[in-house]
Amino acid sequence: MTTRTFELSGDYGSVPGIYREPTDGADRLVLLGHGGTANKEVEYIQFMARFLNEKGIATVVIDAPGHGERLDPSIEPGPDAFARMWHGGGGQEAVLADWRMTLDFIEAEYGARPTGWWGLSMGTMMGLPVSATDERIKVAQLGLMGTWGPNGESLRELAPKLTCPIRFLVQWDDEIVPRDACLELYDLIGSKRKTLHANPGLHSQVPLFEMRESAAYLDKRLG
Amino acid sequence: MTTRTFELSGDYGSVPGIYREPTDGADRLVLLGHGGTANKEVEYIQFMARFLNEKGIATVVIDAPGHGERLDPSIEPGPDAFARMWHGGGGQEAVLADWRMTLDFIEAEYGARPTGWWGLSMGTMMGLPVSATDERIKVAQLGLMGTWGPNGESLRELAPKLTCPIRFLVQWDDEIVPRDACLELYDLIGSKRKTLHANPGLHSQVPLFEMRESAAYLDKRLG
Repeated sequence: MTTRTFELSGDYGSVPGIYREPTDGADRLVLLGHGGTANKEVEYIQFMARFLNEKGIATVVIDAPGHGERLDPSIEPGPDAFARMWHGGGGQEAVLADWRMTLDFIEAEYGARPTGWWGLSMGTMMGLPVSATDERIKVAQLGLMGTWGPNGESLRELAPKLTCPIRFLVQWDDEIVPRDACLELYDLIGSKRKTLHANPGLHSQVPLFEMRESAAYLDKRLG
Repeated sequence: MTTRTFELSGDYGSVPGIYREPTDGADRLVLLGHGGTANKEVEYIQFMARFLNEKGIATVVIDAPGHGERLDPSIEPGPDAFARMWHGGGGQEAVLADWRMTLDFIEAEYGARPTGWWGLSMGTMMGLPVSATDERIKVAQLGLMGTWGPNGESLRELAPKLTCPIRFLVQWDDEIVPRDACLELYDLIGSKRKTLHANPGLHSQVPLFEMRESAAYLDKRLG
């Protein structure tokens, strides 16, 4: 696996990221969105990068607005810290600008390739708007999110605009995002091909087999 | 594929069935439950028998009580014909007696092997009670059913007693079994490993890829 770190400069400040591809190159790409209060180097993102690289797929991840190296150190802990990080970093507008700039950069460096999205929880707060507005996204693995949270109303409005195939994960006993809000968001997705997978457990207890199968799903749908 | 038809005689009358195994034998078995108003030779049962045989798994299917060759010709058509067929054939009691007799017979003929259940809709009205009460069932693919229908109350009572791994299919726009009743039944399942898959479409529009994947699931879980 070849790893390249980069740092871009955009309307919402500096955007550090990591690009990875198999040693013999890749003809497909997946954008990885990390979860709330995590960062581009969180363990499950590294797992997903490896699972996808094993299938010959390149990946790119950036620190989300207000996260990782972009964290505002003056933000105090508390139950609403995540919302303050999200909004302080520029929220959904920053997400859209960051990811467009990142995909532009990667395509300029490595060429345009069939591209997908993988992201759960805040990874869906980012990936649903990105996938609904950037035609380069051909398939998305979403989940652990609902018509809920800092951009819940935007998700509600954008979900019907999705057209690419979607797989959507739900944790049946999610203690953070209410189950009904997750089912409602799946219901609103406009894509003809959309499959929901649900498993028992709390928000962060996604079974490892679903992580592996999500890589197989993206592999299959990216052709 | 080797096919053998048989006819057993039990407390609820004559039970005709079909046993199939790969030409070089099988060390695992799946019981196939057909849907309401269908019979042991309906097309999707033949598909599933083939998908499973391709994985080296034997299958057995019988005409459900009141169905196929066991149909009472005096039953008149109508919206409640299915309920009359179910109850007229002996209902859940007959289902449990028939399937125990059938599995006893197959094990006497071919030996005891790791055994699973596959059945949607009425195939779950049968398979959930069978899987909850017969310890020989090690995994079950269920779905298209809820806390609903002629034995809905029994399903509600028995679901918490399930312990084997379960995959559960839901058709998001099911026009026969209400979605909420399906989600409630999944919720009640006692098994620690239980995964729900949902797709858009009506009751009978299960995507072919889910049928194929259900065979792969049983293959994996039967070890």
